[in-house]
Amino acid sequence: MQVHIITIGKELLIGDVVNTNTSWIGQYFTEQGLECTRAVTVDDDTEAIIREVEYSLNNADITIMTGGLGPTHDDVTRHALCKYFEVDLTEHEPSRAHIRHMFEKRGIPLSSSNLGQSMVPSNCEVLFNKKGTAPGMYFRVNSRVLAALPGVPLEMKHLIREELMPRLTAHFNLEPCYYCRYIQIAGIGESTLSDLNIGNISEYLNGRVALAFLPGIQGITLRLSSYADTPEKARQAAWPLEEHIRRTAGEYIFSDLPEDTIQATAGRLLASNKRSLALAESCSGGLISSKITDVSGSSAYYMGGICAYSNRAKIEMLGVDADVLNEHGAVSKPVALQMALGAARRFNADIGLSTTGIAGPGGGTPDKPVGTIWIGYWSAETHFAVKAMLFKDRLINKERSAIIALDILRRRLSGIDSFPYDLKPEFA
Amino acid sequence: MQVHIITIGKELLIGDVVNTNTSWIGQYFTEQGLECTRAVTVDDDTEAIIREVEYSLNNADITIMTGGLGPTHDDVTRHALCKYFEVDLTEHEPSRAHIRHMFEKRGIPLSSSNLGQSMVPSNCEVLFNKKGTAPGMYFRVNSRVLAALPGVPLEMKHLIREELMPRLTAHFNLEPCYYCRYIQIAGIGESTLSDLNIGNISEYLNGRVALAFLPGIQGITLRLSSYADTPEKARQAAWPLEEHIRRTAGEYIFSDLPEDTIQATAGRLLASNKRSLALAESCSGGLISSKITDVSGSSAYYMGGICAYSNRAKIEMLGVDADVLNEHGAVSKPVALQMALGAARRFNADIGLSTTGIAGPGGGTPDKPVGTIWIGYWSAETHFAVKAMLFKDRLINKERSAIIALDILRRRLSGIDSFPYDLKPEFA
Repeated sequence: MQVHIITIGKELLIGDVVNTNTSWIGQYFTEQGLECTRAVTVDDDTEAIIREVEYSLNNADITIMTGGLGPTHDDVTRHALCKYFEVDLTEHEPSRAHIRHMFEKRGIPLSSSNLGQSMVPSNCEVLFNKKGTAPGMYFRVNSRVLAALPGVPLEMKHLIREELMPRLTAHFNLEPCYYCRYIQIAGIGESTLSDLNIGNISEYLNGRVALAFLPGIQGITLRLSSYADTPEKARQAAWPLEEHIRRTAGEYIFSDLPEDTIQATAGRLLASNKRSLALAESCSGGLISSKITDVSGSSAYYMGGICAYSNRAKIEMLGVDADVLNEHGAVSKPVALQMALGAARRFNADIGLSTTGIAGPGGGTPDKPVGTIWIGYWSAETHFAVKAMLFKDRLINKERSAIIALDILRRRLSGIDSFPYDLKPEFA
Repeated sequence: MQVHIITIGKELLIGDVVNTNTSWIGQYFTEQGLECTRAVTVDDDTEAIIREVEYSLNNADITIMTGGLGPTHDDVTRHALCKYFEVDLTEHEPSRAHIRHMFEKRGIPLSSSNLGQSMVPSNCEVLFNKKGTAPGMYFRVNSRVLAALPGVPLEMKHLIREELMPRLTAHFNLEPCYYCRYIQIAGIGESTLSDLNIGNISEYLNGRVALAFLPGIQGITLRLSSYADTPEKARQAAWPLEEHIRRTAGEYIFSDLPEDTIQATAGRLLASNKRSLALAESCSGGLISSKITDVSGSSAYYMGGICAYSNRAKIEMLGVDADVLNEHGAVSKPVALQMALGAARRFNADIGLSTTGIAGPGGGTPDKPVGTIWIGYWSAETHFAVKAMLFKDRLINKERSAIIALDILRRRLSGIDSFPYDLKPEFA
C-alpha cells in the first residue's frame, strides 16, 4: 500500500518554512504499516499541482496533499482540484456555519475570503475541520484515495488522525501488523547510550526488527519497530530487544509515550507522591515554569516560581544571603541551594528547584565560563546542588539547564538516588 | 532560471529525519536570484531516481540532488546516474587519496566500501569534497546542469557554496537580481489584515513582484519579493507595494528582520527608553519571562517575574487584595491590574505586565469560558487591562496571551496609544 505526499507552498521551496508536515505524515503512515515512497513539494501553481495529482493518482494507492487551502489569493489548491476533476466548487454548509461561529465567538469581523474557505469541489467528501477554517477534502478515484488537507500542522494532524485514517482503514480494509514502541531517554548522549549502555545489539536486529535513535531537545527517543503477519507476532519479534534496552538503559528512561515530556512525567510523579513544587529561576529565565505549566492540571502541584534575574531580586524575593552572594558569586553552589530553599519557603512548597548560571553569550570569566550552571534542589529530606558545564549558545543553555533540572526532579520523585553519569552532586 | 531539488533517502520519507536540506538549498538559491519551483524526495530506488532525474533535466535549468552517495549497499545514486547516462563508473584518483588520508589521520581502518566512494560516473566533473568522503558530481547536459551531492548537510553546503555556485555563475552568466523584504506583523489575523488593511493589491503585483503571507506563532510575516535585470530595478519594482503595506499595516508592523521576535523588539524599546520591566504571570505560566530572557542582554531591563499560579501566591507574593480576588475572581480586570502593579513594586520596575486567564482545558465557566484572558499593564503614567477571548487549547492560549502581552508592551513603548483592532482596553 503506497502513499505519496504532495506539499504545496512557495514558503517550503524557498526555505522560509522547513517541511515538517512531510516528516510527520511519513512517520504516521509508516506506523500504520503503510509505505511512503515519494514526497514532492510544488509552488501554489495550478498546473504544477495538477501534474503531481495526476502522477500520484496513477502511481500510489493513497495521496495526501497539504497546503494551499488558505483564504488569500495565492491559495489555489481547491481550484486546481476542480480543474483536474472537471467539477465546480460548491458550498459546504456545515463548514460555513462553523467558520461563522468561530469568528463570532471571538468577536472578530468575518471576511468574505474566510467564508470562501467553505467552498469545496463538488465531488469531494468533506473532512470536517473543527480546529480551523479550511475543511479537508476526501476524494475516491476508482479504488484509490486522494485527501487534500490544510497545511497548518495542528489541523492537518487532527484531520489525519480523526477523519482520514478511519476512512482509509474502512476503504482498504487495513489491518495493522506493525508494532512500534517509543522509549524516551534523558540525561545521556547518543553515543554514550549506544556504546556504554545498550552495547552491541546486532543479534536482536533483522530485516523486520529495527531500532532508530532519534535525538531531540529532551534527549533521545528510541523507536523500536517490527513488521509481521499479525500484530501479536510483530510484538513478539521486538520483545527481546525491548527487554534488553529496558535492562541496560534503566534509570535514563523517562517515558514510553512518543509525545510525552519530562515535565509531564515529573508532574505525574508530583501528583502521585502528593508533593508540591516551587521554582527559583535565574539562567533558565522562566522556561522551567513555562514547561511545568504546559501540563494541564499543573496547578494541583505547582505553587509558583520566581524569575530572579538580578542579585537584588535574589536577595529580596528569595532571601538569598547578601554576604553569601558577594563571597561566592550568583553562579555558585550556596546561592543555588539558598534559591531552592527560598522558593520552597515563599510558596509553601515541599520541593524547591533552582537554576543559576551563565547562559551567555556574555558574562563568562576564566573561572566560570559561559555555560557554567548550578542547579539546586531542596526538600525536607535532602538538599544538594549539581554543576553542569554546558555550551556557548544562550538558548541551548536555557533549554538544557531546564531539562537537567526537570530530570533531576523526575529521578528524585521516582526514588532513583543516583545522578546522570556526567553530573556529580554536592550535598550542602 | 528554474531549480529543482531531488533529495534521496528513506529516512526522509518515514519521518526519522526532517528534510532541512531542501529548505537550505531553496533559501540559498532564492538568495542567488534563482527560482526553486519543485522539490521531490524518493527512496534509494534506482528506477525512482532515474525517473526524477529525467523529469527535472527536461523541466529545470538546474537540478540539485542530495543523498545516496554513502558507502553502504543501500546507497544507489551513483549507479542510477550511470544507468541514466549509459556510462560506467571510473575512479577519481584525488578523491581516493583524500579518503585514504582521512582514515589514516583518524587511525580508523579503511574499508573497501569507503574506497568505493571514489568511483564516479565517467561523464561527470568531480566537485572535490574536502569535508567528507563522498565526492560531489557535476554534469552538463546540453545547456542544463545536474549536481549530485552528499546528503550530510555540512558537506552539501560546503560543496554548493565553494564548488557548485562558481561553476553555475560561469556557466549561466548569472547576475543577482532578486530583491526581498520581510515585514513582520502582530496583533491581527491573516484575513483581516488582507481584507481590511492591505486591501486589493492586484495593481502592484505582476509576474516579477510577489507578496506572500507567512503565518507563524507571533503573527504574520509578509515576504515581498521581486526579480529584475538589476538589483536596483528589482528594489524599485517592489517599492510601491512596500510603501502601500507600510501605510496600511502601520502600527501592526513590529520588525523588518525575518528572524526578529516581539520580545527582542520590546527589549530594544525598553533599553532605548531606559525603562525596566517586571512580570506577574498566571495563565502564561512563565512563558513571557522565558521569551524576554531569550534575548541576550535582557538583564539590563528585565528585573524579574513571578509566576503566581495560586490565589495564595497572588495575595502573598504580589499583594493582590484578598477581598478583590474573592469578589471578582482571579480572572478579572482588577486582579490583572493589581498583579501588574504588584510586580512593578516588588521588583522596583518602571513597568509591570500581568496575565491571568483560563488556559484550559478545564476551569471554564459559562461566565468565563476557557480562553478568557486578562492582561494588565501598569506604569506611573497609565494603567489598564485588556480582555481577550482566545481558544480551547492550553498551549495555544499560553502562547497567544504571551504574544498579546508583549505586543501591548511594544505598542506602548513605541508611543502607539491605540490597541489591536479586536482588543478593547479598560482603564482603571
